[in-house]
Amino acid sequence: MNKRILTYSFPIIVLLSLVSCTQAKPKSEGNKEHPLLILRKNDVPEIQKGIKNFPLLHASFEEAKEIADKAIESGIIVPFPKDPGGGYSHEKHKQNYIDMYNAGLVYQITKEDKYAIFVRDMLLEYQKMYPGLGLHPMRKNQSPGKLFWQGLNESVWLVYTIQAYDCVYDFISPENRKLIEDNLFRKMVNFFTVEDNYTFNRLHNHGTWSVAGVGMTGMVLGDSLMIKEALYSTKLDGSGGFLRQIDELFSPDGYYAEGPYYQRYAIMPFMLFAQAIQNNLPDLKIFDYRDSVLAKSVNMVLQLTNTDGRFYPINDAIKEKTWITPEMVYATNIIYAQTGDKNLLFAAEKQGEVMISSEGLKLAKSIAENPVPEFVRKSMIIHDGKDGKEGGLALLRLGKAENQSSVLFKFATQGMGHGHFDRLEFIMYDKGREIIPDYGSARFLNVVAKEGGRYLDENNSWSKQTVAHNTLVLDEKSDFNGKLDKAEAHSPDLIFSDLENSKLQIVSASDSNCYPDAVLNRTLAFFELDGRRYLVDLFNVKNKNISRYDLPVYFNGELIDFNFPYNRLTDYQILGKGNGYQHLIVDAKASDLPSTARISWMNGKGFYTLSSLTDPGTEFNIVRLGANDPKYNLRDQYGMMLRFPKMKDAKFLNVYEIHGNYNPSSESVLQSEGSVKNMELIQGLDDKVLINIELKDGRFIKLLLDLNYKNSSSNEIQYNEKSFSWSGNYKLLIEN
Amino acid sequence: MNKRILTYSFPIIVLLSLVSCTQAKPKSEGNKEHPLLILRKNDVPEIQKGIKNFPLLHASFEEAKEIADKAIESGIIVPFPKDPGGGYSHEKHKQNYIDMYNAGLVYQITKEDKYAIFVRDMLLEYQKMYPGLGLHPMRKNQSPGKLFWQGLNESVWLVYTIQAYDCVYDFISPENRKLIEDNLFRKMVNFFTVEDNYTFNRLHNHGTWSVAGVGMTGMVLGDSLMIKEALYSTKLDGSGGFLRQIDELFSPDGYYAEGPYYQRYAIMPFMLFAQAIQNNLPDLKIFDYRDSVLAKSVNMVLQLTNTDGRFYPINDAIKEKTWITPEMVYATNIIYAQTGDKNLLFAAEKQGEVMISSEGLKLAKSIAENPVPEFVRKSMIIHDGKDGKEGGLALLRLGKAENQSSVLFKFATQGMGHGHFDRLEFIMYDKGREIIPDYGSARFLNVVAKEGGRYLDENNSWSKQTVAHNTLVLDEKSDFNGKLDKAEAHSPDLIFSDLENSKLQIVSASDSNCYPDAVLNRTLAFFELDGRRYLVDLFNVKNKNISRYDLPVYFNGELIDFNFPYNRLTDYQILGKGNGYQHLIVDAKASDLPSTARISWMNGKGFYTLSSLTDPGTEFNIVRLGANDPKYNLRDQYGMMLRFPKMKDAKFLNVYEIHGNYNPSSESVLQSEGSVKNMELIQGLDDKVLINIELKDGRFIKLLLDLNYKNSSSNEIQYNEKSFSWSGNYKLLIEN
Repeated sequence: MNKRILTYSFPIIVLLSLVSCTQAKPKSEGNKEHPLLILRKNDVPEIQKGIKNFPLLHASFEEAKEIADKAIESGIIVPFPKDPGGGYSHEKHKQNYIDMYNAGLVYQITKEDKYAIFVRDMLLEYQKMYPGLGLHPMRKNQSPGKLFWQGLNESVWLVYTIQAYDCVYDFISPENRKLIEDNLFRKMVNFFTVEDNYTFNRLHNHGTWSVAGVGMTGMVLGDSLMIKEALYSTKLDGSGGFLRQIDELFSPDGYYAEGPYYQRYAIMPFMLFAQAIQNNLPDLKIFDYRDSVLAKSVNMVLQLTNTDGRFYPINDAIKEKTWITPEMVYATNIIYAQTGDKNLLFAAEKQGEVMISSEGLKLAKSIAENPVPEFVRKSMIIHDGKDGKEGGLALLRLGKAENQSSVLFKFATQGMGHGHFDRLEFIMYDKGREIIPDYGSARFLNVVAKEGGRYLDENNSWSKQTVAHNTLVLDEKSDFNGKLDKAEAHSPDLIFSDLENSKLQIVSASDSNCYPDAVLNRTLAFFELDGRRYLVDLFNVKNKNISRYDLPVYFNGELIDFNFPYNRLTDYQILGKGNGYQHLIVDAKASDLPSTARISWMNGKGFYTLSSLTDPGTEFNIVRLGANDPKYNLRDQYGMMLRFPKMKDAKFLNVYEIHGNYNPSSESVLQSEGSVKNMELIQGLDDKVLINIELKDGRFIKLLLDLNYKNSSSNEIQYNEKSFSWSGNYKLLIEN
Repeated sequence: MNKRILTYSFPIIVLLSLVSCTQAKPKSEGNKEHPLLILRKNDVPEIQKGIKNFPLLHASFEEAKEIADKAIESGIIVPFPKDPGGGYSHEKHKQNYIDMYNAGLVYQITKEDKYAIFVRDMLLEYQKMYPGLGLHPMRKNQSPGKLFWQGLNESVWLVYTIQAYDCVYDFISPENRKLIEDNLFRKMVNFFTVEDNYTFNRLHNHGTWSVAGVGMTGMVLGDSLMIKEALYSTKLDGSGGFLRQIDELFSPDGYYAEGPYYQRYAIMPFMLFAQAIQNNLPDLKIFDYRDSVLAKSVNMVLQLTNTDGRFYPINDAIKEKTWITPEMVYATNIIYAQTGDKNLLFAAEKQGEVMISSEGLKLAKSIAENPVPEFVRKSMIIHDGKDGKEGGLALLRLGKAENQSSVLFKFATQGMGHGHFDRLEFIMYDKGREIIPDYGSARFLNVVAKEGGRYLDENNSWSKQTVAHNTLVLDEKSDFNGKLDKAEAHSPDLIFSDLENSKLQIVSASDSNCYPDAVLNRTLAFFELDGRRYLVDLFNVKNKNISRYDLPVYFNGELIDFNFPYNRLTDYQILGKGNGYQHLIVDAKASDLPSTARISWMNGKGFYTLSSLTDPGTEFNIVRLGANDPKYNLRDQYGMMLRFPKMKDAKFLNVYEIHGNYNPSSESVLQSEGSVKNMELIQGLDDKVLINIELKDGRFIKLLLDLNYKNSSSNEIQYNEKSFSWSGNYKLLIEN
């Protein structure tokens, strides 16, 4: 196949632009002025002025200079690749690209030779070593690197280093450029695109890093084939590459299939390569591509944070990650420069640094000259799937800023290999804290003693399993029996939602595939009444088989109250044998439950109560993590486990209440007790349902639902010789 | 006894002042202008101006006004006393004094009648109810109240309310004043000083609240007997009362015997009553009293915080308490007004509010007009005991601000009933976090479901016990066998300390009484080497009996590495039968230990390693809290438990290392592994000791100690055919 012939059908304008780019530049010799990728030569004078005038840009430059100065002082060390993540050679090669990147930028601003010399001399060291390297000795996964145990790290190295090279390009002699390009950059590109191109062509964040590195290298080296491979895959047919990645990995809303943790990570190569394309192939109008999905994705990932800026840790995720990361600096800066969207400013200000580029200049100027509006986290439905038709997420939010409570309801696609079997789970946050958490991943990022920081075995045996999540488990098995391919093939369905009602926010979603012969539907309604916030949670299961049902509710905080007797166990009982159950120790048990069982806990300044409608056969357990964990790979985590008796069709009603206030400064405590006295679930004809919640103050909350979801104009249900009627999916009544 | 005759020998000037005060004012009729206690009539115009000019004062006034306006809108409700802490009537009476206090202040600033009317009318309600009240129905302890279940709350009520009354005094008609004074204030004072004066005369923080309330009431009502009783006890002989409290409850350094949590609490009545004395009995020069110990106490309690502003939670303590509390606002404001000490400004600025008084005005002005210097937490020895000779605390600190690590070493007095049996314990903080924690108290403050927020039974059975602390336990018993009276009778001794050496900070202390026939000595040396911080911890025990030795080391964080095999248990084992051991579950066990056993854990951004010198018979356990805790009254807490074989005299060497950095934003991890390879303890003649710590990089840290503590000029010890000599208590060597 002749790689110069494009077989994938792109808009003509793109082809023209590429062709002209190809024709204009002979291989290996750029005719443009460097730097040209992100920081551009013509922008330097304005940036130099901006550093004097705008605090954020000034601070960022000073930080870059400090890194570069320290690096120059430390000297050039390019160790032979030896160690896994967290080890010396691994961390040193990471430090080297950071150092070169910063030295390159500082050279452009200061034009002091020493910075360029540092980058040049280090690249000359790399070019000596690289051609002789085989695959990394500590390689573990299917895509190893040479400098690093993972090819991924090598792609990241290239994304940074090619920018450093771009910045000092003019300073380096043609002879040295040839050495560096031939022995280092082209060899590395060849490794990615020829020797082991599985990752490069993959529709996955690793692929995005790889294509960004190669594509940007192509721009600096003036190699149009590299650029085309980066855009269209090594086959040049659009089966992979950057554009296809944009097509496939984001939903039309800008949600990234792997979830926010990886969206945060992947956003960096998406942003940098897009900016480089914008600067060098402007006709591609990359930021307009797919209805501006790259800009949407940045707004989306910012929305996917709790009030403390942490990303919601669904799927494989490190829970400490916030929007203050280097990746997110590129995201806010580049998209702000494109769109001027003031919603980006709040996060950018918190980040406390900007890019040293015209993007960073614009943002620093704006923050210096105008008040920054508070970032508003909104309730929303996020559609998943490349067409936005494969389920999604719902964000239900009450209150503002620090006083916001949020519920994330997940009915999204599996999210590839980092996805969890967590169909219809929800997590809850309040006052900046995780209250009903997702465990995230079992991994100690880059901690040598913990398998070099890789995902631990417990990530599969626990973190991904259904029982590790706040959702229904049938017969002690995980969704799709824990099989990734089956889970990838199906996604849940959004049944209905209404987030516009000022009285309550409601979402209902179903999954028909995660368990055989069963349809699971979950409806969540979130509303506030006299300062208390209620989340009504109704599972409605249609099941052809008889199943045992478990509903885990993990919680952070201290248990303070129960309305039923329970026994804290004095022997060692493990909850089950597999699918995550083998990791749960039973800490307490109760079986003689009232029809409305109530448990309260506190966390920080808040109080929380779960009220659960039970059957006579329902058991309640307190469980904690730690069984079959000989190496302490799992964190401590307590949970409540409602175990319902075996049945076919089933409805499970739970109400979570956010209430009260503990003020350790003034020592005043308000509303530390839950308000729900009793609950009833009344089933009408044709799957109409009336949820009746009796409060201790004598009032009743009634939520009327049409579980047939016909959205008909006249629903009716009888209760206590009264008739209740409503139109549409739901109605909320507060009765005194 | 004629109460008008003073038998306690105070400086003449005090007597004269009191006499003149007494003579000048007929009982029940002040001849001074009101308000006179804290906010004074003559200061009001300047404060009114200051509210316009100084942001902190402005914000504080606005907040007071908001509280007062809301209170007026809500109307006056004075419920019959019924509920325990956290319950409605309890919280309402607390809210009422807050509301009246704020309304009183706002009346003085605005002169709007509605605020005075609110206070007057509420006091009229109280005076109707109070005379008919018996002891509170929910009373539990030996000093109940009438409005509240504890007399303590009633004293606090009076301290606030008398200030409110003072503020609106002029507004209320003489007839109503008589009703309020006779039926409410005099009745309450009579309750404190006659009906049940145990607390009033006690040298204890409850006593301070009581005398402050009564003394301030005396000033407002012009009743000199009340004032004298407050100053000298109801016997007027100085056996109790405010001055004796200042004499006895503070060490000369300003340390308060109960520890920082209660120091923070007690500081409010000390400050307010002192300020009221300064304003009304200035000749008493109360702030100069005892070499200005009140000012010292404020500086001291600020020093007794971690970098995040939390008080070190030794003894009974709620761990959430920071220096941002209403009590600490009075402390910083009043002492700043007296001393102008700029060290107080940092905390005051963090507090974000000031008193509405001339003190608050001064502070708000200073913060508005001058840069606020960072508060510097220093290494220091804090002497305990009224003469400063009863042991104390050592604060060892390395690094600055957020990067500070601190070690608190406790060899203080018992600290009365809220003291713990924790002789020679230490706790460690790093990067703002508790790393090796003190449990604090077993109590959910004001949480109704948890015994109304009182101290729980587990406070005695766990929190106070020696095994709950990071110190040596002999034969599974607590210090003094857990007997308070014996513990109160003895205190440890500071043996030597040197905090001035820039290379290391060292403290040594001994206790000869906590276990029979044994002398326990602990030496802690804290120093930094190439970015790692080391705490060398040597116990030296002289014991006439054969004892079993346990050393618990509680830790917060995730275990990541061990250099020895261990078994995580799969059965339920409780560590012991009593003295706190009954609450510990054995989670993992190891007995085949290397001579230097090493365990690492991580917490937040830091890594921590314990290296322990073991004997062949040493056992290592991981323990966790939760046994014999049927109501979940105890929080989760993991610990390491070193169990040494039975012996008489013994030395135990442990090294704690603070190392590395985990950066979740950049994902870079540095130095996640401990540096200690091997340790030796070489005993020379006459209790000379050489501690030899071999590092993985080939260097050796040698710490030479004279455990005879003769501080002689020539100590010598032989090791590896080399002779090491030093003068004084210690010498540190780093050998390459």
